[in-house]
This record gives sequence, C-alpha cells and structure tokens, in this order.
Amino acid sequence: MTDSLSKLKSIYHRVSDIKNAAAVLDWDQETYMPPGSGNARAHQSTTLETLAHEIATSNELGDLLHSLHDYALEQPEHSNDRRLIEVGLEDYEKNSKLSPELVGKIAGAVSRAKDAWRDARAENNFKAFAPHLTDLIELNREKAEAFGYSEHLYDALLDEYEPGLTAGRLDSIFDPLRSELVSLVDTIADAPEVDTSILRRTYPHQQQWDFGVDIITSFGYDFNRGRQDLSAHPFTINFSIDDVRITTRIDENFFNPGFFGTLHEAGHGLYEQGIDHSLARLPLARGTSLGIHESQSRFWENLVGRSRPFWVGHFDKLRSYFPGLPASATPESFYRAVNAVNRSFIRVEADELTYNLHIMLRYELEKSIFEGTVAVDDLPDAWNQKMHDYLELTPPSNDKGVLQDIHWALGAFGYFPTYAIGNLMSTQLYDALKKDIPGTEELIEKGSFDDILDWMKQKIHRHGRKMTAEDLMISATGSSLDSSSWLRYARTKYADIYGL
Amino acid sequence: MTDSLSKLKSIYHRVSDIKNAAAVLDWDQETYMPPGSGNARAHQSTTLETLAHEIATSNELGDLLHSLHDYALEQPEHSNDRRLIEVGLEDYEKNSKLSPELVGKIAGAVSRAKDAWRDARAENNFKAFAPHLTDLIELNREKAEAFGYSEHLYDALLDEYEPGLTAGRLDSIFDPLRSELVSLVDTIADAPEVDTSILRRTYPHQQQWDFGVDIITSFGYDFNRGRQDLSAHPFTINFSIDDVRITTRIDENFFNPGFFGTLHEAGHGLYEQGIDHSLARLPLARGTSLGIHESQSRFWENLVGRSRPFWVGHFDKLRSYFPGLPASATPESFYRAVNAVNRSFIRVEADELTYNLHIMLRYELEKSIFEGTVAVDDLPDAWNQKMHDYLELTPPSNDKGVLQDIHWALGAFGYFPTYAIGNLMSTQLYDALKKDIPGTEELIEKGSFDDILDWMKQKIHRHGRKMTAEDLMISATGSSLDSSSWLRYARTKYADIYGL
Repeated sequence: MTDSLSKLKSIYHRVSDIKNAAAVLDWDQETYMPPGSGNARAHQSTTLETLAHEIATSNELGDLLHSLHDYALEQPEHSNDRRLIEVGLEDYEKNSKLSPELVGKIAGAVSRAKDAWRDARAENNFKAFAPHLTDLIELNREKAEAFGYSEHLYDALLDEYEPGLTAGRLDSIFDPLRSELVSLVDTIADAPEVDTSILRRTYPHQQQWDFGVDIITSFGYDFNRGRQDLSAHPFTINFSIDDVRITTRIDENFFNPGFFGTLHEAGHGLYEQGIDHSLARLPLARGTSLGIHESQSRFWENLVGRSRPFWVGHFDKLRSYFPGLPASATPESFYRAVNAVNRSFIRVEADELTYNLHIMLRYELEKSIFEGTVAVDDLPDAWNQKMHDYLELTPPSNDKGVLQDIHWALGAFGYFPTYAIGNLMSTQLYDALKKDIPGTEELIEKGSFDDILDWMKQKIHRHGRKMTAEDLMISATGSSLDSSSWLRYARTKYADIYGL
Repeated sequence: MTDSLSKLKSIYHRVSDIKNAAAVLDWDQETYMPPGSGNARAHQSTTLETLAHEIATSNELGDLLHSLHDYALEQPEHSNDRRLIEVGLEDYEKNSKLSPELVGKIAGAVSRAKDAWRDARAENNFKAFAPHLTDLIELNREKAEAFGYSEHLYDALLDEYEPGLTAGRLDSIFDPLRSELVSLVDTIADAPEVDTSILRRTYPHQQQWDFGVDIITSFGYDFNRGRQDLSAHPFTINFSIDDVRITTRIDENFFNPGFFGTLHEAGHGLYEQGIDHSLARLPLARGTSLGIHESQSRFWENLVGRSRPFWVGHFDKLRSYFPGLPASATPESFYRAVNAVNRSFIRVEADELTYNLHIMLRYELEKSIFEGTVAVDDLPDAWNQKMHDYLELTPPSNDKGVLQDIHWALGAFGYFPTYAIGNLMSTQLYDALKKDIPGTEELIEKGSFDDILDWMKQKIHRHGRKMTAEDLMISATGSSLDSSSWLRYARTKYADIYGL
C-alpha cells in the first residue's frame, strides 16, 4: 500500500507542478507579458492544461485511487492520506465525466467569447455577444448533465465553485435576505447623505502603494512568500504555499479601489499562504471553496478594513502617508466615508450593503436561464427590471448593465453566488472569533493582527481542501452557512452610521 | 506521410510549449520570484524538464522520425520539413544516448554544486568546492562517453554548445591568436594610459535605463515582442519568437555594465526575435549555436556600441540623458574611454582585447582536466600560472581566480570557448556586411540601423537551427570560422587608440 500511496503522491506532485507552472504563465500574462506574444502564450497554457487534465483523468490514476480506497478507510478520519484518497477519488470521478471533446469545445467557446465580450462591452452591443452566450449556456448545460444533479441542473454548476451548495439552499438563504436588504437600502436612501468627498482627492500612486503594503504586512501577508504587482483587474494567484501573489490597481483620484482592493486580495493571499505545508504539491493544497475564499478576502477588506476600530487606530498612519489630508478630516468622518451606501450600476464599485443585491440579481438570472424561463435575448430587459426592483435604477446602457462582468464570457455560471456567500460567512466567522478572542476590536485598533490571523489559520487556512466549506463553518462557528449574522452586522452598522 | 508529419509537429509543439513554459519559470525566478519559494520552483522546473525529456526521447517520437527519413530526403534541401526531420533525428539520437539516470545524476550534482560554489566563492574556499567539481567532471566524462567522439573526449562536450566544433580545430585557431594577443596587450601596457575617469561618475539609474532602451529600440529590438527587467546577472531568454526578454543590471557609479550589458543582451534578443515564424514551436526555432549567438551580442555591443562612428553620432544623445557630463568630454574621449585595455582578474569586466585571453585560459584548463593532465586540486595553481603567463597578473585569492565563474558549477564544460568564437565570428560577419553595405559606418553614426539589422536577419537570424554555424558562416561571409578578421580589427583599432 505504501508503494501505491507514494506512486499516487508522485502523480499528484506532477499534476500540481504542471498546474502551478500554468498559473505562473497566467500571472505573467496579466502583469508583464509583452503585448505581441498572446498567441504563443495561449498555446503554452493550453498545452499545460491539457497535460494536467490527461494525467488527472488517466486510467493509471483511477486504478491507483480505487486500489487505495480500502486503505483510506482504515486511516484516521482527518488524516492527510485518507483525505487525499477521498478527495482524489471525488475529483477523479468528476473529471472523468467530462469528455475531452466537451472540455475542448468549452475552451474554444470561452476563448472566442472573451474577445467578443470585450468588443461588445466597448461597443455597448449585447446582440454581438448573445450568440456566444448562447453557446456557452448550451455547453454548460451539457457539462451539468455530464456531472449529474438531483434537483436543479444549476446545482451541478454551483458545485463547481461551492461544492455541496444547491439552488434550493441558496433560495432559502437569499429570499429573506433580499427583502430585508431592499428595505434597508430604501431607508438609507431617505437618510441624510454621508460625505464622501474625502475619498475623492489626490492620493499619489506611490503613497497608496506603500500604505497598502504597510497595512497588509501588519495583517501578516508574507512578502517573503508572495509579492504584489499592478494589473488591470486585481487578482490573487498561487504557485505554491510559499509563492502566493496578489495584484492591485491604483486610481490616484479615488482612495477606495487601491486600498480596499489590496486588503481584499491580501485576504485571499493569507488563506493560501496559511495552508499547512504537509499538503504541498497535493490536490488538498488550496482553498476549499470560493465562498470560504471570499469570506477571507471580505473579512480583511470589510470587517477589519472598513471597521471603526481600524480607522480609529490607523488614521494617524493614513495621515502620515497622505500629509495633504485636510485638518478637518477625522477617524470618524473617514470611517463613515468608506462605508457610504449608494445605489449604483456597477457591482465592483458597490458598497458592502448593495453588493449582495447585485449578486442576487445575477444568481436569479442564471437560474432562470438554465430553467429556460428567460431567453438570452431577453436578458438585458430582465437585468434592467431587477435593477429597478432592487435598486430603483435603470442602467442607461447595457455596458453598465448586463455586459459589465466577464464571468459569463468565461463560461462561469454559478460563480457569482459565492461572492455573497463569502460575505455571509465572513461575519459568522467574525462572531466566532470575537467569542474566542473578546478583545478582537482592540487588537484591530492597535494594529495587532497576529492573534486574529492565527485564529483564522487554525480554523480555516491550514486545512486547505481537507475539510469542506460546510465542515469548516460548523467546526469554526458551530453553525452552517446562514444570513442572520450578516444581517445583524449590517443593521447595526448602518443604523449607527445613518442614525436610523 | 502528411499524417506522420503533422503528428511529428504536434509532438514538437508540445515539447516546445513545455520547454518555453519552463523558461518562463526560470525568468520569473531570476526577476520577480519571492525569496521563500525556491523549493517549490525547483520541483516545478524539474517536472517540466523531465516531461519534455520524456517526450523528446519517447519511442513514439523516434519511430515517427525514422518513418519520415526517406520522405525528408525527397524534400528540397533547405525546406523546413526536411530540416525538421534531419535536425529532429540528430537531437533524438543524441538525447537517447543519455540514460534518465545520468540526466538525473547530473541535475542533482549541479543543484548541489551551485549552492556549494556560491558559498565557496563567498568564503574564498576552493577546497569546499573541489569535491563538487570532481563529481561534475566525472559525470561530464560519462556524458561525453555516452555521446561518443572520434578524437578528444572534450569534443563531445564542445559539441553541446557549438555543434561540430572540435578541440583540434580550436587549438589551430587559438594557438596563433594567443601569442599575438599577449604581445599586443604587452605593447599596450607600455603605451600611455587611456583616461577612463569619464566612465566612473554618477550615471543615475533611470537615465541609464532610458538611454539603453532608446539605443536598443533604434537597433530594432522590439518591445512589443520583448521586455527588459533587472537581474543580478544579465541574460536573454525566449518563450517564443514573439516573447524574447532581456535583463540588465545598473551600477550608478560606472557607465559600462548597464549600457554595454543592455546592448549585449539586445544583440542576443535580436537574434531570437528575428527567427522566421514558420519555425515557431519547432526545435528549429532557436539560435543554432552559442558561438553564432555570441557573434550577435558582440556585434551590437562591440562592433557597433564601442565603435567611433557610434559615439560620434550618439554623443549628443548621451549628453542629453546625462546633462552633468563635463563640458570637456568629447565623442573621441568617450570612444577611447570605453575601449581602454586593462589587464584585470575578472572575465566579465575584461575589455574586448584581454577578454579572449580569459577564455583561452579556461579552455586550456578544461581540456587539461579531461585529458587528466591537471588534477582538480591543482586547478587554482594552474589558473594562477596562466594568468601570470597571459596577463602578468596573480590573483590575490581564488574568488578573483578559479572560483569567479558559475559555469563549471552548472556542469557546463565546453561553453567558455563559444564566447571567443563569437568574437571572431562577429568581425567576420562585419567584414561581409561592410562589403554588402559599403556605407555601414555612416549608418551606425546616423543611428540608422534598419539595413544592418535586416542584413543580419537575412544572413543569420531567420534561419534558426535550419543551418549550422559552419554553413551560416560560409554562406554569409564566404569562409569558415577564422581569427584573421578579428586580429586585423583588433590591431587596427588599438594601434589607432594607443598610437602604436
């Protein structure tokens, strides 16, 4: 058995090395690659992905995994070896359900759709994108059928990003949350506006960069095992537990994108840097679901970075990086500014409160598409109707509406809900953290994040994929995914800020 | 046949993509990789190299190549398909001679030797490096035996870097060159010194960078298909014909390393950028030998960048980047300064003239090692003796002598001679260029490099590995590798500068 096990591991090491190399190619493409080399890079990425997929679906791997199944059951329940074989079998069976033809067709359709989407958005021309969207929906339907599902076809798509989550479960969480949110946003719209002018002044590039690096270093992001670069769209990517990179973008006339983007990506980065080294080069060595991942980014971005204790404790530091801030600015005024609620068209610019409504809109449309109750051609109207219902806004054009996100062009249906799930999880985790460490808010104010990061590492990070999202939530917080904690958090916070 | 041929190409595409991905990992490691991730990166690089080697030595590839041999002979002599099969067969047979065990042993020994060499050089402790050197010499002997040779075992090593070249041929070229050089350097040592103080002042980092970029852009280095970064040791690396990257290092107190390093690497880069696109993703799509490669880097660095016409034509531009240059500086004084000859210990700091003596010393020692006439323990003394004989210098310590270069720690024996060969080839090519374009020196002075680059591209670059170094030299210059052109160049240039 130990021979089979070490053979299994050596196959996984190879797959992991190839996938991580492919990730380096992606990182390079988004940061430093010269513009003229896109064609060659596409070939290189495809070759590495194909190689990894060939090995991950090989009979050799399947036979090994099946031969080790009984051995796995004899191992302690949470042992690395047992979980490796269990998760390995799940992955193998899932991967093997997709024919290479379908994988190839999806890759081709995505590659065409991405370019079409960029043009369509630039030209505000939904009709030009619609045929590509139709193809991708059809291919995703095929994929979902191949994977199989018990209730909704959409469940098979969700499972790709948030294993185990279903549309039924999501509906039961989102339905009550939506009406609460719509009414809370409505109430806030009637309250006196928060002054956000402090955020819209000149924040020089280098000082923004340095301030962000200062703060995430204090969070515990390890620049010895990571780095930050600039890119058009911020992202986190990891090539190993010891090489987890983040990117940011900086707008010299607006404080939020750079600073909160940096905190957000650092949150993702801390998760991947915190995975136990015993899982290295194995399929267990990454975040267990996108929801859990987003809970980490949102925790550091919002629950820490948009908290009153944080700004009380760090306002002097902010001023030292930006000495031109007006003397009238205070920790409280800055805290309120970065938490202002505004109905707006664009998801990535949305505040913490309206953000979840943007997500629910997308989730509902995705579900309708796969249920066949909304046709592709009717998507723009359906989108605008929901914007009107939830945010009392009507997008002036599709580039500010249905065309704004790249996700569908990437063939990623079922991805959006994980953003909202991450928000909900983040406050559930925060409640548990504050129970375990009653002085958490003082620590945030002091900028002393070691104990907080350590708690998160013990409860979440180190486990990688050894535990499912559901198991993590129960073991860390005592309960499953649930919206009550987040709603309590949101009601309290905005009642205070807006004097409701 | 066309089925076999397209199967062959698809295998080569895969190998090429994997190798180019491995090159991206190397580039990243030397430029941006965080320090803590060396271990994971080593695994990733090894996995990709192993995969490429497995495919390149697979029975499938061998069978295909053999089945296509007759077909190849029916194709036009210089057709891509014929050369692909011919070169492919040569590569395959060569690769297949090395057992995976020997390849693994060499990789392991190199990995250990590199670290040992860094420490040994830092601590000036040759004894600590000697056992590693002994291992690598033994493994290279095994490698040479596996490849086979007709006269000298060393020929098999040389062939790795300069296919077809032999020690016998090198001796016949180097022997007369050496005595000429020693006496020329001797004569110069008695002549009045050239004033080089202009080079040793403050040249700010950004201006050095910008001036270098300006000049290599005018050479024709295409930043749309390449980029420049900083690294400890400058290098050129290519991931495709459309992604050829160079690096440089900048010393703010010395003009030469940054500027001439940039020109040198750009010369390598122009070669790889100039390969015909019809060879993309095939084993023909790279420089044909290290000697030819070095002829390109030296051409732009020395024959252009250290020429009088260049400085006559570009001195105003230099001054515009470095307005602090003293008013007394002239094109002529600058030209003389960058061409000053000085006996020195370190190869990479050597001038154009003494450089070849540094190379001959190494070549002779390598040959003696493999002939068994110099033992590893005696290398430091043998080194110092030759330094005394050729340059009248005695290194004060081994870090300024036998320990200065990384090449032996990389297991690269037979590599050094290609540096000198490149120098010789560069003037042979220059003579031919001036015959074809009589106004070359005026073009250099004007900074109008299009015709020069185009000539080099037609004669050398575009062919990739379709032509051997020998064939290229004969077709481009009418003669084989030969030292007479370079000697004529050197005698004329230095007689003029030093008033001999």
